[in-house]
Amino acid sequence: MEHGADLLTYQDRYDGELIDFSSNINPLGPPEGLENVLIDSFKTLITYPDIKYRKLKESISNYLACHKENVLVGNGAVEIIDSFVMATKRVIITTPSFSEYEKRAVIHGKEVIRIPYKEDFCIDLDRLDVIRKGDLLILGNPNNPTGLRIEKGELKTIYEMVKKAKGFLLLDEAFFEFCPEDYDSIEIFKEYNFESVGIIRAATKFFALPGIRLGYGCTSMETAKKIERNQLPWSVNTLADAAGQFIFNDKEYIEKSKLYINNERQFLLDELSKIEGINVYNSHTNYILIKLLEEVDEHAFNYFLQHGMVLRKCSSFLELGNNHIRVAVKDRKNNLRLLNAFREYNCKKDESYKG
Amino acid sequence: MEHGADLLTYQDRYDGELIDFSSNINPLGPPEGLENVLIDSFKTLITYPDIKYRKLKESISNYLACHKENVLVGNGAVEIIDSFVMATKRVIITTPSFSEYEKRAVIHGKEVIRIPYKEDFCIDLDRLDVIRKGDLLILGNPNNPTGLRIEKGELKTIYEMVKKAKGFLLLDEAFFEFCPEDYDSIEIFKEYNFESVGIIRAATKFFALPGIRLGYGCTSMETAKKIERNQLPWSVNTLADAAGQFIFNDKEYIEKSKLYINNERQFLLDELSKIEGINVYNSHTNYILIKLLEEVDEHAFNYFLQHGMVLRKCSSFLELGNNHIRVAVKDRKNNLRLLNAFREYNCKKDESYKG
Repeated sequence: MEHGADLLTYQDRYDGELIDFSSNINPLGPPEGLENVLIDSFKTLITYPDIKYRKLKESISNYLACHKENVLVGNGAVEIIDSFVMATKRVIITTPSFSEYEKRAVIHGKEVIRIPYKEDFCIDLDRLDVIRKGDLLILGNPNNPTGLRIEKGELKTIYEMVKKAKGFLLLDEAFFEFCPEDYDSIEIFKEYNFESVGIIRAATKFFALPGIRLGYGCTSMETAKKIERNQLPWSVNTLADAAGQFIFNDKEYIEKSKLYINNERQFLLDELSKIEGINVYNSHTNYILIKLLEEVDEHAFNYFLQHGMVLRKCSSFLELGNNHIRVAVKDRKNNLRLLNAFREYNCKKDESYKG
Repeated sequence: MEHGADLLTYQDRYDGELIDFSSNINPLGPPEGLENVLIDSFKTLITYPDIKYRKLKESISNYLACHKENVLVGNGAVEIIDSFVMATKRVIITTPSFSEYEKRAVIHGKEVIRIPYKEDFCIDLDRLDVIRKGDLLILGNPNNPTGLRIEKGELKTIYEMVKKAKGFLLLDEAFFEFCPEDYDSIEIFKEYNFESVGIIRAATKFFALPGIRLGYGCTSMETAKKIERNQLPWSVNTLADAAGQFIFNDKEYIEKSKLYINNERQFLLDELSKIEGINVYNSHTNYILIKLLEEVDEHAFNYFLQHGMVLRKCSSFLELGNNHIRVAVKDRKNNLRLLNAFREYNCKKDESYKG
């Protein structure tokens, strides 16, 4: 299980609709009105997307409050990350983190240096001294699967360290909007004209559009040009292009989603922490990492699958071993269903395990 | 002008709707019923595409009459070509051909060897002796922009030469369905279990869906697995996935489109060849390469733009110089418009050129 969301693989093991706690998507669904926008855009299918994505970049630059020349777009966040990886020689990652960072680096024949997080899943600043000129440091912010955001002061410290070493800092902020509004990296790094830094976000998680494949990023104008040269032409299709010209304008949806997730995350954190036999890590975003104190992830996965829920086993993440799972924050009904199953699982685990 | 279809760049130079002769798309538009399929698929936008594209591959394997384990899918033909390029050390291309072959090779740091076509745009077999173990030979079949398909016997000869040298033959057949039905490469190479050969096609041109980004390919099961490891996850979005489960079943549309293009190509070839001042090359597909005997491509481009038509200047193609243009075969009304403009252009060129 390299990624979550692969429900098709498990569907034949449950008679009914599976609830997907393995991918972390806004439970409110995409902004209203999107379907009509897409229907209006069917006429664009017979033309290539604008190879320069002019209107899409304008929409994103308005949303991010940056210049459109700072904006990158791609087929999900992962395509943009890939293009940054291609442009470097060494990739420095923290572990555990999103598996594609290392995977793409290996595919492109880049050297990978792993820095394990400290026990509290904070970055070990002392170990950042490995960064050399031209290195790409990729940090999840918040990080997946740990769910923690880098504290503002620490982010500035890390940036100064990377800049001093003449490296490049790439922040994967695919889950940015779910986080408490304590700071916005784009606002911070705008003052530096995004020198030696790139920030990647996506429509995937917050706008509940994993199927449409729309990622975007913000970096210096010079770096944006350089990265675009590595990208495949037309990688964002015309429907994703049209969606990106629409969704970022729905301020009401954005506010409502933030409040909803904040509330449900706190509810889940509070309730999960009452359950014995698990260790619940704090989260700043819409998923929660859980350590199973007495069981392996495969066991929990199978139990929940029998009850119609797909969890994310975390043994494919480096450093986590086979006793961590990750759950998405969903709507109240499903969150209650998850909690009930956890309560049952915990006390019944010995009888119920069928292997 | 690295690619055609960039109408947005030229729109402010013409007051009205531009007719795009620079991209080669089936003028009949996509199969009927596709819009309803897409509307039904909006519900899939809130989930990731199937990371293994199981149903899509099944649909393609039925269409191609091969095993689904032979099938590759990607974000347009170009993403699949890119993944083959990544897996090799040296890339051998013929010139002139689609610019992305060399571009992707350079981006991935691969050595590029160029073999110019002979004067008749046939492959110079003597020069294929450069192929060494592990080399990737990419051939457009039919080739872009020359419009010619490799003759069946010659294709087998080339394949045997590549196999003997332990190289790999990649056929870019993005325009396959437009060609006369003299042979099907997939049928030919199926007998070899696609050993050392890959065939790339796409929904882009024939199914008139450049906006949706759906390419596919056929190779040995072993190579398919190897190439997939290089690909980005989820690069085909859920709507393109759904389209690909639908369009290949419309046999009536497929037959009708083939007949239509065959007919219009012949009409355009016949009529263009009567015009003085140009040399019209033969074509097996839905675009025609034209040599301007007394003018540069920029001149013709500007003239046609003033008349609401966008041609493809070919000076960005290697070996062609600045006196070739390429035109798409469109519907009769637009083809007549093109012919009329050519007749006017030819006799009036000295007066009308405004630079």
